[in-house]
Amino acid sequence: MLDFTTDRGRSMSEIRKDIVTGVWTIIAVERGKRPHDFEKQSIKKNSEGCPFCAGNENQTPPEVLAYRTGQQEPNNSKWKVRVVPNKYSALKEQNAVETIKGFYETITGYGVHEVLIDTTDHEATIGKMSYEQLELVLRALKERYKDISSDDKIKYVQIFKNQGAEAGASLQHPHWQIIGVPLMPENQKQIIKGSKKYFQEHSRCVYCEMLRYERNAKVRIIYENKYFTLFAPYASRFCYETWIMPKQHLYDFSRLKDEHLKSLAQILKESIQRYEKVFDQLAYNICFMSPPLEVNVEKYFHWHIQIIPRLGNLAGFELSTGSYINPTPPEMVAETLQKVAKKVR
Amino acid sequence: MLDFTTDRGRSMSEIRKDIVTGVWTIIAVERGKRPHDFEKQSIKKNSEGCPFCAGNENQTPPEVLAYRTGQQEPNNSKWKVRVVPNKYSALKEQNAVETIKGFYETITGYGVHEVLIDTTDHEATIGKMSYEQLELVLRALKERYKDISSDDKIKYVQIFKNQGAEAGASLQHPHWQIIGVPLMPENQKQIIKGSKKYFQEHSRCVYCEMLRYERNAKVRIIYENKYFTLFAPYASRFCYETWIMPKQHLYDFSRLKDEHLKSLAQILKESIQRYEKVFDQLAYNICFMSPPLEVNVEKYFHWHIQIIPRLGNLAGFELSTGSYINPTPPEMVAETLQKVAKKVR
Repeated sequence: MLDFTTDRGRSMSEIRKDIVTGVWTIIAVERGKRPHDFEKQSIKKNSEGCPFCAGNENQTPPEVLAYRTGQQEPNNSKWKVRVVPNKYSALKEQNAVETIKGFYETITGYGVHEVLIDTTDHEATIGKMSYEQLELVLRALKERYKDISSDDKIKYVQIFKNQGAEAGASLQHPHWQIIGVPLMPENQKQIIKGSKKYFQEHSRCVYCEMLRYERNAKVRIIYENKYFTLFAPYASRFCYETWIMPKQHLYDFSRLKDEHLKSLAQILKESIQRYEKVFDQLAYNICFMSPPLEVNVEKYFHWHIQIIPRLGNLAGFELSTGSYINPTPPEMVAETLQKVAKKVR
Repeated sequence: MLDFTTDRGRSMSEIRKDIVTGVWTIIAVERGKRPHDFEKQSIKKNSEGCPFCAGNENQTPPEVLAYRTGQQEPNNSKWKVRVVPNKYSALKEQNAVETIKGFYETITGYGVHEVLIDTTDHEATIGKMSYEQLELVLRALKERYKDISSDDKIKYVQIFKNQGAEAGASLQHPHWQIIGVPLMPENQKQIIKGSKKYFQEHSRCVYCEMLRYERNAKVRIIYENKYFTLFAPYASRFCYETWIMPKQHLYDFSRLKDEHLKSLAQILKESIQRYEKVFDQLAYNICFMSPPLEVNVEKYFHWHIQIIPRLGNLAGFELSTGSYINPTPPEMVAETLQKVAKKVR
């Protein structure tokens, strides 16, 4: 039996362990009170000649996918969602994946790197976008995810959004990135190892158990709709980190049905709207946590989304130890993001 | 036999593996060419009432160590280097380390968090500091490292400097932080695992071998003095990342002798001066990579320093995969930081 009482009423200086990855976070309320010499300046935006705006289709490589109404010729300006290869790609599709082992080990830079442009609206955010538009975005992401995954040289596909300069975005026009790599990243190895171990010990999916635990504990859940739950994870590494997780055991984004995508669009917009009520011009990353493509992880992996606001910089402690210091307890985050709901609707 | 020829003349789109941690970096020159909507603005600095300036000693908790000339009473303003407990500590020294295991696992926030103030000069940087002053700083860091390590509830001590707001600094006055934690961080576990594996397979320290390899390859070494080497690591995760490594097999910072500290102060200033010639107001982290305190790792761990410039933000790809995209090959970094040497002297 799970005990739902052990994580309440504790002192707020704790070191919390992620149940899957084993990564530690120091929840340190005191840190939030320190003084600051540095003032954040607003960042200049230049929207002239944006390569992602309608009419500038010739500034990107030819599209690999687009949803249009009316005229269906590729690369015309009447699109709703558009996917193009990244012009400044981190990886290239070449003929072979070659591993070179000398003293060091290297793989030739094989891979796929695409950009999905959310909308023709340069100023849009997920919070301002219509549910229908966001559903189209998710549908296109799913279509590209499926296609890239079918390449057997690709071992893992990462979908993510960088919103704002502090989150690593170089262009303002709302977009996602999809990167397919010929190897299993370290974090995914760790996640698979942890969730497999839990399954072997308890014969249950650790994420399904986590949702069950959180729904009983009632201190970190922010919002739920038909198919998804938004909550602040127990060992939140980042200030105001939240996760969106399917309520059912769904391990693979590409298997989400239309009704799931509709429900996901709804909760994603709802989540970002809440952030937009609390913070002005927040920078954040949205990361799809996907399974490896070669290993059978259906029983113990559980697909989900991590929303990572960029409210502070990772500093020397995080970069050297891989542990985190987070000044805001997830219980406080949940309370705040619950409270703003009235303002959202 | 090591082969010194395999890592030259390759295409510059490669995925390189860190020989110790197994962490992958995509070296992607193309990424460096992408356009940017966002312009970095200079950040306002407020130096009034700085708690680290001489005369404001009452604004910090009482010192735990200071080097002074003349008057030796603690907490007077005539200090050269000063160490105080962090007023906004991430951790607290309490009586017991308690692990609470429910569904999740938590450790009470036991630990040590100190601040070392480099100098009374609010505007100083390591590049502008005298060799003698920097040697004092290193001596004080060593003294505190030794003392904190002697607490048997502390399993690991992290020394680091956050320089600039983008590197996570909240105060401008030059300072270091020392954090002692009651657990072994994930990154350190990975480093120990990797270096132990190499030792078991080759009966040699992987870092000693790395230095030998680099000195023969001659494409990533930037500078050497009597006891230390500055180089750009093969699988550099960050743009312009460099490491300072003892030439001899020295596994523990606290065992560095006076002559080592003198040599370290020299190469550290030399390194930062080169960065200061290439970049204006660069933000960076300096991380001491130290061994765990309980395990005997003398044979295969090799103490070193990582300098991590903050030239771009970690984005969704890095945060979700734990792999890195670096637009600047370390060979180019080495060439640039070698060339500026004339300007330094």
